[in-house]
Amino acid sequence: MTASEIRALFAVASRPEVVSLAGGMPNIAALPLDALAVEVADLVAREGQVALQYGSAQGRPELREQICEVMALEGIRADPDDVVVTVGSQMALDLVTRIYCDPGDVVIAEGPSYVGALGSFAAYQARVVHVQMDEHGLVPSLLRSALQSLAQQGTTPKFLYTIPNFHNPAGVTLAVPRRAEILAICAEYGVAVVEDNPYGLLGFSGTIYPALRSMDRDVVYLGSFSKTFASGLRVGWALVPPAVRDRLVLAAESATLCPPSFNQMLVSRYLAAHDWRSQVKTYTEAYRDRRDAMLRALETHLPEGCTWNVPDGGFYVWLTVPEGVDTKAMLPRAVTARVAYASGTGFYADGFGSRQLRLSYCYPTPERITEGVRRLAAVLEAELDVMRTFGTPARLPATPPEPRDGPQAPSPHTP
Amino acid sequence: MTASEIRALFAVASRPEVVSLAGGMPNIAALPLDALAVEVADLVAREGQVALQYGSAQGRPELREQICEVMALEGIRADPDDVVVTVGSQMALDLVTRIYCDPGDVVIAEGPSYVGALGSFAAYQARVVHVQMDEHGLVPSLLRSALQSLAQQGTTPKFLYTIPNFHNPAGVTLAVPRRAEILAICAEYGVAVVEDNPYGLLGFSGTIYPALRSMDRDVVYLGSFSKTFASGLRVGWALVPPAVRDRLVLAAESATLCPPSFNQMLVSRYLAAHDWRSQVKTYTEAYRDRRDAMLRALETHLPEGCTWNVPDGGFYVWLTVPEGVDTKAMLPRAVTARVAYASGTGFYADGFGSRQLRLSYCYPTPERITEGVRRLAAVLEAELDVMRTFGTPARLPATPPEPRDGPQAPSPHTP
Repeated sequence: MTASEIRALFAVASRPEVVSLAGGMPNIAALPLDALAVEVADLVAREGQVALQYGSAQGRPELREQICEVMALEGIRADPDDVVVTVGSQMALDLVTRIYCDPGDVVIAEGPSYVGALGSFAAYQARVVHVQMDEHGLVPSLLRSALQSLAQQGTTPKFLYTIPNFHNPAGVTLAVPRRAEILAICAEYGVAVVEDNPYGLLGFSGTIYPALRSMDRDVVYLGSFSKTFASGLRVGWALVPPAVRDRLVLAAESATLCPPSFNQMLVSRYLAAHDWRSQVKTYTEAYRDRRDAMLRALETHLPEGCTWNVPDGGFYVWLTVPEGVDTKAMLPRAVTARVAYASGTGFYADGFGSRQLRLSYCYPTPERITEGVRRLAAVLEAELDVMRTFGTPARLPATPPEPRDGPQAPSPHTP
Repeated sequence: MTASEIRALFAVASRPEVVSLAGGMPNIAALPLDALAVEVADLVAREGQVALQYGSAQGRPELREQICEVMALEGIRADPDDVVVTVGSQMALDLVTRIYCDPGDVVIAEGPSYVGALGSFAAYQARVVHVQMDEHGLVPSLLRSALQSLAQQGTTPKFLYTIPNFHNPAGVTLAVPRRAEILAICAEYGVAVVEDNPYGLLGFSGTIYPALRSMDRDVVYLGSFSKTFASGLRVGWALVPPAVRDRLVLAAESATLCPPSFNQMLVSRYLAAHDWRSQVKTYTEAYRDRRDAMLRALETHLPEGCTWNVPDGGFYVWLTVPEGVDTKAMLPRAVTARVAYASGTGFYADGFGSRQLRLSYCYPTPERITEGVRRLAAVLEAELDVMRTFGTPARLPATPPEPRDGPQAPSPHTP
C-alpha cells in the first residue's frame, strides 16, 4: 500500500475559503430531513429490537428484494438470493478483489479509473493494466489488444473492472453498441467482468442505460445508495453469480460480521415510503445545473490548449491541460489560490495522468463552481506564463505536507 | 476459506420452537427505545446533512475522544489520534490481520478462540497455533513453550490474539498477575499482542480488569459498542500504536471508504446524553440472572461426567461432555429435540473440540434457558444410553444440510 497522494489535499481543501472541486461528496441538501426524522424515530420506536441487533451477513431479505427492483430499471433480472448487501459498494469492490485476486494477478481497468478501486487492487497486490477510453467509453479494439498482449505473456487477467455510466473520473459513458462487444471480448479471453455502477440513475437526459449485467448473467454488478439516497448510511451491494455468492458472504462475514441492520431498514423504509425516484430527479437536476455552470466557466475562463469532456450525467469533468503543465506539481499553487482539484495521476496505477485533473461539480453551488474555475484558470495562466518566460513551469513541492489528521475531511477516496 | 460449520445451525435454530443457546446476540430488550427515537429524530433533523454524508476514514474526532474516555475505565491512556473507528470490532480484527499477516504466517490464539477471529485468520491464510487456558485464562508457561517450539522451527508468530475478559467461548478471565507475565513473554519473543475486549465492562461483580493495553502501549486493542449499546449499529474500534495507525486507516479506506457517519453520531449522542453506564449495569444484571439460571439448570439436569466453568461476566458457558460423545455429531439430534448450541470444533483451527460445546445465556429468558438445558440433558442422556448399549454413539449426518439462505438468522459469527 502507498499513501494516497490526494489525502493531504482534502485536509487543506476543506478550509471554507477554498473552493473544492476535488471531492466526490454527493449533494444531499435536497433530502427531506423532516420526513426522514419521523421515519427514523418510528423505525427505532417500533422495530428497534431488530434494527439495533445483529443481522445476517448477506443482508436483509426485504432490502435485497428492493435492490432487485432498483436494478430492474437497468434491465437486470436478478434473484434476491444473489444479492449481498455491503457497507457501501466500496466494501463489495474490496471483497470481490479479495475473492478473485492473489498477489501478482492482473486486473484490467479503464485508464483513468476510480481511485478507490485502484486502492483495493493495490491492497491485494493485484497489478493493474489500463485500457484507454474515448468519448464513447472503453475502446473495444484496445481492450482486445491488451488481452492479446497479456495472453502472449501467458497471463489471463482476473477481471475487467469497468464503470460504464458517467465514469469516475472521465465523465464518459460506454456507448450501448460497445457493451455487447466488450462482453464478447471478455468471454473470448475468459476474463470476468466487474461492473461498478454508482451513477447509472444520474443521467441528465433521463436515459437509463442497460447494465452489462442485463446482457450477461455472469457479470458481477456493484451498486450503491450513496448517490441515490445518502452516502452517510454506507449501504451498497454486489449482485454476483451463484457460484461466487457463498464465498462473498463468507468474506463479508469475516470483514464486518453483518452490515448494520439499522441502516438497511432505513433504506428499505425510504424506498418503500418515499418517492425516491422523484428525489433522484431532484438530485439530478441540481447536478445538471452545476455541470452547466462548470462548462460555461471552463469555456469562458480556461486558457487555450485545455480540453475536457461534456458529461451527460454523474459528477465529473476530466480536464487535460496544455503540454508542459504538471497538475500534481501545480496543486499546491492552486490550493494557495483557493481552489482544489484531484490531480490525474491518482487515477492511474502506472504514473500516467500528470497532464490531467478531475473537477467535481457535485457539491459546490453553481456560483462557487464558477468562482473556482475562475481561480483555476488564473493559476493555469500563471503556470503558462512562467513556461513562456522560462520554458518550464516553476518547481515547487509536489504535494502539500501530509497532515497528521484530517478530521471531518471527506475521504480522498470518496467516489 | 471453508464454509462455516455452524452456519447451517443458525438457520434451523432460528425457528421459534427451538431454544437457541448457540448465538451471541446481546439482549437489548432493556434499551430505552422511546428516548432513542427522540434522539435519532433530532440527529436527522438537526445534523442530517453531516450524518447522511461521507465522513473521514478514521472516524469522527468527537467519537474517538469518547472512545478514549470509555477505555480509561480499563486504565488505558490513549490519544484519539490513535483510534480508528470501524464497522464493528470484527472489521478492526480483519484489517489488523490484513496488515500483519501474509499467507503462511503464524498467529497464536487461545484454544478455544472466537470463531470470527479464526475466520479472519483463515481468510488471510494465517496458520493458527492454539495455546491452552485453565480457569485463570491463558497459561503463561504453555505460551512460552509454544513460542520456544516455534522459534526452534525459525518461526516468529505475527501476534498473539487474546480475549482476556469473559472469554468467548471459554468464559474465563485472565488472572491479573498473568497479564504482565504474558506481555513480558511476548516482548521477549518479539510477538505483537492483539487484545480483543468486547465484554470487559460486562463483569458480574462490577470489577473492571486492567486492559493489557494499559500496561503496554504497543498492544493493539479492539473494542466495540455492540455489547454496551447496540450491535445493529456496527460501531467498533481499534486503538493501535502510531506506527500502525496510517496503514490501518488506509486499509479501512480500501475496505469501506469510511464508517457510517450516522451510526457514529448516534453512538456519540448516546454516550453524551444517556446514562450509558447504568444501562450497562442493567444489561449485566440481566446476564447474571441468565447465567444463574443456566448454572442451576446444568447442576440439576446434566448427566454425570459433564464439566463446565462458572463465568464471572460475558455471555458463555463452555461445556465438556463425557468421553465418547461427539458434540458436532450430536447437534442434529439436539436441534430435533428443539435445543441448539455451538459445537466446540468451530472454536479451534485444528479439529480439536469435539467433546466441547458453547452455551450462550445472553439472549433467551431464564425460563427458556432452563428448558433448553433440560432438553440438552435429555439428548445427552440418550447419547450416553446408546453408547452404553452399543459402545459407540449412533452415527447420523454430522451437520444439518446447508440451507440455501439464512434470512434473518444471526450470523454464525455473532460474537
